[in-house]
This record gives sequence, C-alpha cells and structure tokens, in this order.
Amino acid sequence: MTAEIITIGDEILIGQIVDTNSAWIAQQLNRIGIALVQITSIADQGDAIRQALSSATSRADIILCTGGLGPTKDDVTKQTLATYFNTTLVRDVDVLAHVESIFKKFNRPMLEVNNRQADVLANARVLHNETGTAPGMWIEENEKIYIIMPGVPTEMKYLMQNEVLPKLQGLPNQYAISHRSILTAGIGESFLAEKLHSFEEDLPPHIHLAYLPKFGQVRLRLTGSSLIEQALEKEMEAYSSTLMELVKPYFVGEGDVLLEQQLLTRLKNHQLSLSTAESCTGGYLSHLITSLPGSSAVFKGGVVSYSNELKEQVLGVRASTLAAYGAVSEQVALEMALGAQKNFKTDYSMAITGIAGPDGGTDDKPVGTVWIAVAGKEGAKAKLFNFGKIRLPNIERSAANALVMLFYLLKEELVD
Amino acid sequence: MTAEIITIGDEILIGQIVDTNSAWIAQQLNRIGIALVQITSIADQGDAIRQALSSATSRADIILCTGGLGPTKDDVTKQTLATYFNTTLVRDVDVLAHVESIFKKFNRPMLEVNNRQADVLANARVLHNETGTAPGMWIEENEKIYIIMPGVPTEMKYLMQNEVLPKLQGLPNQYAISHRSILTAGIGESFLAEKLHSFEEDLPPHIHLAYLPKFGQVRLRLTGSSLIEQALEKEMEAYSSTLMELVKPYFVGEGDVLLEQQLLTRLKNHQLSLSTAESCTGGYLSHLITSLPGSSAVFKGGVVSYSNELKEQVLGVRASTLAAYGAVSEQVALEMALGAQKNFKTDYSMAITGIAGPDGGTDDKPVGTVWIAVAGKEGAKAKLFNFGKIRLPNIERSAANALVMLFYLLKEELVD
Repeated sequence: MTAEIITIGDEILIGQIVDTNSAWIAQQLNRIGIALVQITSIADQGDAIRQALSSATSRADIILCTGGLGPTKDDVTKQTLATYFNTTLVRDVDVLAHVESIFKKFNRPMLEVNNRQADVLANARVLHNETGTAPGMWIEENEKIYIIMPGVPTEMKYLMQNEVLPKLQGLPNQYAISHRSILTAGIGESFLAEKLHSFEEDLPPHIHLAYLPKFGQVRLRLTGSSLIEQALEKEMEAYSSTLMELVKPYFVGEGDVLLEQQLLTRLKNHQLSLSTAESCTGGYLSHLITSLPGSSAVFKGGVVSYSNELKEQVLGVRASTLAAYGAVSEQVALEMALGAQKNFKTDYSMAITGIAGPDGGTDDKPVGTVWIAVAGKEGAKAKLFNFGKIRLPNIERSAANALVMLFYLLKEELVD
Repeated sequence: MTAEIITIGDEILIGQIVDTNSAWIAQQLNRIGIALVQITSIADQGDAIRQALSSATSRADIILCTGGLGPTKDDVTKQTLATYFNTTLVRDVDVLAHVESIFKKFNRPMLEVNNRQADVLANARVLHNETGTAPGMWIEENEKIYIIMPGVPTEMKYLMQNEVLPKLQGLPNQYAISHRSILTAGIGESFLAEKLHSFEEDLPPHIHLAYLPKFGQVRLRLTGSSLIEQALEKEMEAYSSTLMELVKPYFVGEGDVLLEQQLLTRLKNHQLSLSTAESCTGGYLSHLITSLPGSSAVFKGGVVSYSNELKEQVLGVRASTLAAYGAVSEQVALEMALGAQKNFKTDYSMAITGIAGPDGGTDDKPVGTVWIAVAGKEGAKAKLFNFGKIRLPNIERSAANALVMLFYLLKEELVD
C-alpha cells in the first residue's frame, strides 16, 4: 500500500518552521510496510487543499493531512474538506464535552471559535485527541483512506500512535518493506560504487542499494519490499552480511550509528581515553564528541588553541617549530597531538590546524589547507587536506576527517 | 512572483532525514518578495519527477529542484530533465576541469561516474558549485524558470547565495515585500509582547510584527507589502526606528546579525580579547564564536575541561574548591572564568559548568543545572540556570545564555 502526506499551513511555506512531522510519519508508515510516495506542503487555502487532495488521490491509497485545524484557521480546511467529500459539518457531542473539559481545567471561558473545534465531517469517524482540542478524522471514500490530523507535533503523534497506526496495521496489506543501513568511513562514494558494482548488479529487482555520502563517510542503505515478510527479512539479512563483508576495511557499524559514537564505544571497551587540540575547527570536533551522552567516560577534554601562545603554553608546541614551519604545518599538527596526549594524560588524541578562511591564505598554504594529526600507542601521524574555500564546510570536513583518521588508527592499534 | 520547491530523493520519503533545505530556501525567497506556494518531496524516479515538474509548472513562475544529483544517482534525474525539456546532456569543460581539480586536490583517480558529474542540460546555464562536484543549472523555458541544485545543504546554500538569489533579485517583480529585523537579548517573548502591545496595535494592516524567540534572544521581524516600493521603504524605516527605540535596553543589532557577531565586533573595536572555559557545553560555545570569519582577531582560544584534572591544570581551579563545592557550582564557574582570563591572557572570558544529561544529576543538582560565569574588568560574576532534561538543547541554551551574559557585561563596562 502507498501513502501521501499533505501538510497544510503557511508556517512551512514561509520557512518559519521546519516540517519534522513528515519525517516522523514516514518512519512510522515505513515500519508497517506502507510506502510513502509524496509529501506535499501547501497554504491554508481552499484551492490549494482541493488540488492537493485530488492529486494525491490519483497516486496513493492512503492520504494523511496534517495542520490547518487550529481554532483560528480550521474553517477553511474543514469547509473545503466538506465540499470535497460532498458532505456537511456536524457538531460532535463527545468532542464538545472534551473541549469543554479542557477549558474548565484551565478556568477559561469558551468562545464560539472554541465550540467550532467540535465540528466534524458527517462522513468521518472521529479520532479522539486526548492532547488537544482539535479531533482527528478518518474518512473512507472510493476505496481510499483520508486521515485528518492537527499539525502540532505532540497532538499528531498522539493520534498516530493511539488511533491511526493501530487501524492501519489492521488493514490487509500486501507489501512488507525492510531496510538495512551500514556506515563506512575512509572511502569515497564512487570508489565504493565501483567496488560494489557486481553486488548491485546481482541484487534482485525488489531490493536496491542507496549511497548516502557525508564528509569522508558513506552510509549504504539496502531497501527491500516483498509480499512475504519473513522471506524478505531472511534475504535482507543475507545481502546485508555480504555487503558488510565487501566493505569490511571501511565498515564502521550497522543501523543509524555515528562514527564518533563507534569511536567512543571502542575506546571505552578498551578503557582508553581521548583528548583534542583544535585550531581552525574552533571546538567543533570536541562538540561532536561531547554531544553524545556518556562521552565523559572517554573524553577528558581539549583545547581550542587559536593563538600561538596557547599552542605553546597548553600543548607545549615549541616556539622554534612554530617559527620554522608556521602554525599550519605537519610538524605543528604532530606536536599538538602529542602535546594534548601528554599534557591531558590521555591514550589517544586528535589535533587539527588549518586555514578555515575566508582570509589568512597564502600561495603556499591557500585557504582550506588543513593538517590533521592523531596520536596513539606508537607516536603520532599527520595528513594534509585541502577542503576548499568556504569556512563552515571546512570546519565540518576537518572534524569529520579527524574522526576518520582516528578510526583507522584504532583499527591498527587495537585488537577486538 | 511565485515559486515551488521539488525535493528529489528517497531519504526524505523514508524519514531518514528531515527536509531542512526547504525551510531555508523559503526564508530566502520570502525575503526577496517571492511567495512559495508548494513544497513537493518525491522519490528518485523518472515518473515522479516528470509529474512533479509539470504540476509545479502549472502553478508557479519559478521551480527550484534539490537533490538527485550525486555521482551514483544523477542519471535518473538528469536524463529525466533532458527528456522533459526535450534537450540533451552535454559535457561541460569548465565543470569537468573543476571536478578534476577537486580529485587532484585529494590525490584520487577519477572514474567515469565522476566525469558524468560534468554533464549538464544543453539548454541550461551552469551555476558554478565551488563546494562540490555537482553543478547547479538554470533553465528558462516558456516564461518559467527552473533551478536545479544538489541536495547537500552546504552545496545548495552556496549555490543559492552566490548564484541563484542574486539572479532572482534581478528579475522584475510586481509586489514589493520589505522586511526589517531587530535582534534583542535578555528579555522573554511575552514581556516583549506586552511592552510592544500598543506599537503592534497601531501598525497599519499591510505591516505586521513577528516574534522569533531562541534561547534568551528574540528576533523581531517587521514585514510589509505594498504596490509602491518607495513609500513602503520609508514607512518601514520609520516603524523600525520606533521599534528600536522601544527595545533599546535589549537591542543587539539590526538585520540578520548574530549575538556572537555583535560581541566580537564590539570587542574588536575596543581592541579587547576573549577566551572560553567550557565543561558541559564541550566546545559548542567556542564553535559558535569561531564559526565567524575574523574571530581570531578577538578570540585567543579556550579549553574544554571535561575532567577535573584539566580544570585544575589548565585553568588553575583549586582542588579544594572542587572538593568543597563540586564541579557544578558558582565557585568553580567563577574560578574557571578567572582562570581562563588570567592563563590565556585575555580581557574577557566566559565559563560554563553544568550537567548536560541524560545522567549525572542528583537531588541537589538535577540534570540541566548549569552555572555560567563571565569575567571582565572588574572580576567575575556567575548565574545559575536550569535548562531541563535533554542534552542537546541544554548545550545550546547554555552557550546562548553565556553570550547574553557577556552582552550585559560589555554594556556595563564599555562606553561606545
């Protein structure tokens, strides 16, 4: 079965809010084997709503609408729906009692607009919304299902979990959908694609492979669909194992794992500690690490040594090295990594020094020149990168590649 | 003029990523007076792309497509576009040279799929993508404009800012829309709304005021529309001046200014320097500062002192203070700020120590307890916050409020 989402409301179209509802609904539908074919965001306008409904009806079996049901703007949406389905609005006594009870709880007088929250389509089954005043509605018409929900995330989620998903799961469904994700690091998308060419060619038509690249990491996603769920799961398991075997040297983990999480887990399992020394990334690398719960068990801390004084004082980088090679150099990167490891008393460390831009570049060392070093059991090693001219991507790529370098170092030095 | 966005790619439809691109594009279009009428998300499939294009063409003047241009999956998108526009793909020599230069920089051999990144529609004007290998394309056909961009946010944003928006701003537009933004800090949204009640009441119907709150800062946005651009600009200027006067004690700056940018500019004008000492924010505060070009003129560096050892060693926090009051305390926050100021030889400093969660809370100091201190000319002062139970918002709110505290300290200590 297929579904579409229609989100109604100006907030999304003027960019005031990001539509997080749709991704959440997509995940839920996907899990129960319903494939989403389109998401459409439109304004609170009769014409737009009518056009989106009829267009979605031509493609999907299930149409989920969110938004446009708040007390100040539900008129357009509900009236348009009534016309579209050739029906009327009726005041629902149970919904009215629920709305009244909410107003009583907050000791607030009810206005006529609040009463109108209890008006529902005469052809709809009401979906009780415990979390708010706007009820959901379930409409079946010409073998299609229409689900109308408010756009407030907590209310939409309540209705999905308590009313919509249980009903959808009860429908006879032809198709099961299954996903497997594998994260790789240190190999580019096109090289990976070449490596996996024959694996991809040999996939049956109901399973396909997608590449999702990001800064030195590529997430591989296998998606399969089939009439027989059990057989599909077995197949997916087998293809996923083969895939893991094929990308073994670059394998980070399965599922939605992050590279930084895998590194922390690995270090923690070996009771090892980590520190950072950052120049051009300005704290972004330590932010990535410390965003993860439990990182303090491994990460002792780091320094953002923007100035040369701090590089000398906190990390023990020699003034002579800075003078001879400059702050952005292999030698300084190595001394920063070794200095962090020694001074912060950690087993491993990562260091980054570079020119993030837009200024500060020279002919020899243009903007984007970045030296990254990692230190471990057997000293430190450094690598030169050039990430181009733009500051923020430079910062993000530098931090991501420091993680990739640590990934390889742990691979060499630790035995699982 | 009206626009629509079409996002191409399975990632959004299976809920693997949230579509943040569209909200960003919507904001940019809105600012230059282009109204977005629909956002459509579809899969990497020829039929879906064709249908979405023809449907969008029937409603809008400008159609922006993002996604579906990576080296492993651009075939479908570009071939479909070529068929749709009844044209062919040609290899662009400039794009090819750019792609080659990227591969050369990383010392990697190029594969045929990489060469194909340089294939563009024969009827398109190429939009140079400095940040990646997939070029953007600008197509004019039957008085409609089609803009094709990669879906990677940094690449899309680069193309929008450097190529697309300047071109769109050059187009003749009938309706003038004008915006004025004012950033305030240190006053809550509802207090601000109360203060501005009669200002808001007195606004003419074609000008309205929006409140965009974020972590101790509220951005006020005046939006006006009119047929007569010059008159509108004059009016907007007048209302914006009145507004600035009304919020004077909380005024940070005009336009899209960031609080951290205003602080850096202020410090730079007075030739003063800044450092940070972070515990629970783990480098996020210094990341905010160093994301800004030119920050190195003011920011000397900082330490992420996750462990107590680092607090003592790098910041000179006394072991007795840590033992007596605990790492999350007013006393430790003050010693961290003073330690950073002294050891890193800066005029000002900010320090944060707290419990980001999800673990580590106690009855006395529950998760979300954060002490923030700022140090300046006359010693340091600290303030206690509680930002709730969730790790990432905790980190973001802590960093934002440190900036607000520094904002007030500079207001007290510096005379402009």
